[in-house]
Amino acid sequence: MPMKSPAKAAQESFTVMNELVLPNDTNTLNNLMGGRLLHWMDIAAAISAQKHCNRIVVTASVDNVSFKHPIKLGDVVTIQAKVTRSFHTSLEVRLDVWAENIPSGTKLKSNEAYYTFVAVDQGGRTIPVPELVPESEDEKTLFEGALRRRQLRLILSGKMNPDEASELKALFAAVK
Amino acid sequence: MPMKSPAKAAQESFTVMNELVLPNDTNTLNNLMGGRLLHWMDIAAAISAQKHCNRIVVTASVDNVSFKHPIKLGDVVTIQAKVTRSFHTSLEVRLDVWAENIPSGTKLKSNEAYYTFVAVDQGGRTIPVPELVPESEDEKTLFEGALRRRQLRLILSGKMNPDEASELKALFAAVK
Amino acid sequence: MPMKSPAKAAQESFTVMNELVLPNDTNTLNNLMGGRLLHWMDIAAAISAQKHCNRIVVTASVDNVSFKHPIKLGDVVTIQAKVTRSFHTSLEVRLDVWAENIPSGTKLKSNEAYYTFVAVDQGGRTIPVPELVPESEDEKTLFEGALRRRQLRLILSGKMNPDEASELKALFAAVK
Amino acid sequence: MPMKSPAKAAQESFTVMNELVLPNDTNTLNNLMGGRLLHWMDIAAAISAQKHCNRIVVTASVDNVSFKHPIKLGDVVTIQAKVTRSFHTSLEVRLDVWAENIPSGTKLKSNEAYYTFVAVDQGGRTIPVPELVPESEDEKTLFEGALRRRQLRLILSGKMNPDEASELKALFAAVK
Amino acid sequence: MPMKSPAKAAQESFTVMNELVLPNDTNTLNNLMGGRLLHWMDIAAAISAQKHCNRIVVTASVDNVSFKHPIKLGDVVTIQAKVTRSFHTSLEVRLDVWAENIPSGTKLKSNEAYYTFVAVDQGGRTIPVPELVPESEDEKTLFEGALRRRQLRLILSGKMNPDEASELKALFAAVK
Amino acid sequence: MPMKSPAKAAQESFTVMNELVLPNDTNTLNNLMGGRLLHWMDIAAAISAQKHCNRIVVTASVDNVSFKHPIKLGDVVTIQAKVTRSFHTSLEVRLDVWAENIPSGTKLKSNEAYYTFVAVDQGGRTIPVPELVPESEDEKTLFEGALRRRQLRLILSGKMNPDEASELKALFAAVK
Repeated sequence: MPMKSPAKAAQESFTVMNELVLPNDTNTLNNLMGGRLLHWMDIAAAISAQKHCNRIVVTASVDNVSFKHPIKLGDVVTIQAKVTRSFHTSLEVRLDVWAENIPSGTKLKSNEAYYTFVAVDQGGRTIPVPELVPESEDEKTLFEGALRRRQLRLILSGKMNPDEASELKALFAAVK
Repeated sequence: MPMKSPAKAAQESFTVMNELVLPNDTNTLNNLMGGRLLHWMDIAAAISAQKHCNRIVVTASVDNVSFKHPIKLGDVVTIQAKVTRSFHTSLEVRLDVWAENIPSGTKLKSNEAYYTFVAVDQGGRTIPVPELVPESEDEKTLFEGALRRRQLRLILSGKMNPDEASELKALFAAVK
Repeated sequence: MPMKSPAKAAQESFTVMNELVLPNDTNTLNNLMGGRLLHWMDIAAAISAQKHCNRIVVTASVDNVSFKHPIKLGDVVTIQAKVTRSFHTSLEVRLDVWAENIPSGTKLKSNEAYYTFVAVDQGGRTIPVPELVPESEDEKTLFEGALRRRQLRLILSGKMNPDEASELKALFAAVK
Repeated sequence: MPMKSPAKAAQESFTVMNELVLPNDTNTLNNLMGGRLLHWMDIAAAISAQKHCNRIVVTASVDNVSFKHPIKLGDVVTIQAKVTRSFHTSLEVRLDVWAENIPSGTKLKSNEAYYTFVAVDQGGRTIPVPELVPESEDEKTLFEGALRRRQLRLILSGKMNPDEASELKALFAAVK
Repeated sequence: MPMKSPAKAAQESFTVMNELVLPNDTNTLNNLMGGRLLHWMDIAAAISAQKHCNRIVVTASVDNVSFKHPIKLGDVVTIQAKVTRSFHTSLEVRLDVWAENIPSGTKLKSNEAYYTFVAVDQGGRTIPVPELVPESEDEKTLFEGALRRRQLRLILSGKMNPDEASELKALFAAVK
Repeated sequence: MPMKSPAKAAQESFTVMNELVLPNDTNTLNNLMGGRLLHWMDIAAAISAQKHCNRIVVTASVDNVSFKHPIKLGDVVTIQAKVTRSFHTSLEVRLDVWAENIPSGTKLKSNEAYYTFVAVDQGGRTIPVPELVPESEDEKTLFEGALRRRQLRLILSGKMNPDEASELKALFAAVK
């Protein structure tokens, strides 16, 4: 098994993507369809995850995403992605999404989300990923919350017994 | 405000979608990209939600989705969608996804997921949706669980205090 | 040459596909373009043909298709496909297409069509396909009509002399 | 009802379209999918029909199309379209399709097909189309055959009784 | 005619776009097609131009673009765009493009280009754009060169007599 | 190194492409986006270049392109491409683009442009291309101008010192 690469800073995985909402991305109300946005977020998050581990990555899961405001035809969608924490062969990416209507000068936060990825070799076998080092206060908060979110994912996908989710009890004390 | 339409059976919203995985849907390992699948699931779920409420619907949220197995170029993806429960102006759709490699005769369960939608009029204003009546045992189980999943969504999006989530305590007793 | 696989029931090839009509599928009247529908029908029929023979299939022909009603932007197109009969290395698939405008509650039969496919191996060489066993009355009627439609195809593509088309004389006695 | 425009020569509707076969147009054998070709043919035929009647046109039917040779990824598809005859509010377009592999210097006739269109106004109502005047020998042969093909279409779509198809009896005497 | 808006700094129009090279973006050598890259660059430049003038913009011209290295399937393309100078109703955007192969850790400058846009109102009529204020040394150099590039564009499109191109003589003295 | 193939006439590379402007090709004013047109022009030019050298070709550069008139949703874009001159391993293609609104009977010249390509073998290595023989007066004029345009390209991409551009001085004497 290949040796684990040296740790990397969160900032090295920072990725920005802008997309223009075109007619085929919209429904009959001329609003961006949720599924198209999830697709763009997946690509932005995959680029960010690749930057961290310099490997091909495959999507392992998407956490709960809620859509707050309709995004209109012609709007510019800005997606920012950054790795929050790596585990043995997987890593979590945080996404922040804004929708901007440039002619009217409005820009709204549209979504926050977490995607997780697994790093694989050319044959599709999982391989270890470098450790992530959080530096700013925000990065440290996201790094710490990653354990709790991971327990919730494992419970929701039936891979962990709720009794064992020590971190998750924090969810009921102080949900972000 | 328009009157609420009469209640409808869960089965009336049942929708099946088949998609063939084409080259542009895949990454460099020839595997279906997670974001593309989320996009297809959104369309299947929206069709199902529309069947229930006979209205235009917009995606409100996607619950945690995990991707279990790689889906390959040339596979047939089958998505089944059915409304589990309606709330005042929103409704939850359950999705089951299979990937089938027909030449090799393999068919695997790939995902289970919940999408929620809000019904809107032509001006984009939310409107009441018909009640859903579960009939089979499965439909009744999904109907009951919908309250718990809704509380989790509200907590995760910061709209509910964990203390008020009476139903969600069941999550820690018996997670599906 | 590989042995022919055991016979299969028509029902085993049954396939349903739902597609939402998006802006790029439409012309300047906001109606679904005929060519896009033919493309979707080809994919649905190919999935059905693959289910019957568990092989890669390639489109060999499309019979006369007529488009009865305009299908609008935002409509849901439902395509049902089922194999009607197999020949030595080819098979015929019957398609039924509906267009549904869910908000207005209308659902119209849009098309009926027959596509034929040839089964091939990885090198693209034709290979024998399993026999098809019709079970319901409808399946038996379609099974019988398949010979007549095949003769018409062979005549129209210049591969059969009209004099030899014994079955096709039935066409002039009783066209469906 | 608007007056019929003056007659036009067949040559005025002549249209050529070239398309490069890209990955998403192909199946897992790297061959162009039949449905994609039918889609391109529909667009080429619609442009030709528009040139004849200077109106928006909608696809009314496609005659039997057979696919003779596999077309490969990277091939150039050349589609030629020309109106053969107009009827009261509809018109028939003949298509000839070639596939060319430029590096190897091969060019094969791939398909011949007939699409019919109906001319409509902005509200989608059918309107009369100009008469077509065939000039070359080929154009005259196609013009004459158009009546016979029309009868076959009407019979196949259940709109004409085979007994009335005087022209179609020619089909059994001399099929092209 | 609307009043001209206040001047804006170049930095306010800065835009970053990342795209993943997918199969349909590539030719038969698995290299990104030049035309697809020009399309992405147009979208990135249009977003940048919109940020400067808070108006709908339409592409007026593209300057000479050369493609230095092949960009491969799976590479990440990063496009940076920033307005260099505005004229009465038009503005010039500078683009820098890199291609990064993340698994191999290589990142190469692929292109530099200039696109110009015209600002229009909802009826498509041209309208004045805000002045641009360059701040950094790089921005000032680009601002000055914009006049020379504009003269070359006008000459190449036949709208200026070479004799009048006082600035362009600098081209022959010191081409960047 | 392979021997150079025999010279070919310009006319042998002549290519026509027609495209219908669909919703996803347009911006929020329902006008064709410049980048999409550049993409179509690249494909038409690549087909033309392939016809001349019977080899895979890759885009090397695009000369200044200006967009004169808006092209509307539903218009037919006609692109004509022909090789003007070949150099050692590269060749220049001239493009003429028209936009036609068939219902209103208008057809306008939209663009003229030059794309250059390099011929490569399967491994991506450049290889010699056949000489081009101009025959008509137009072809001879384009053949002669090709040298001057090539010098401008080399200067603009920093590969030639303006002092050496003997041909380019003609640009300032008589620009087409």
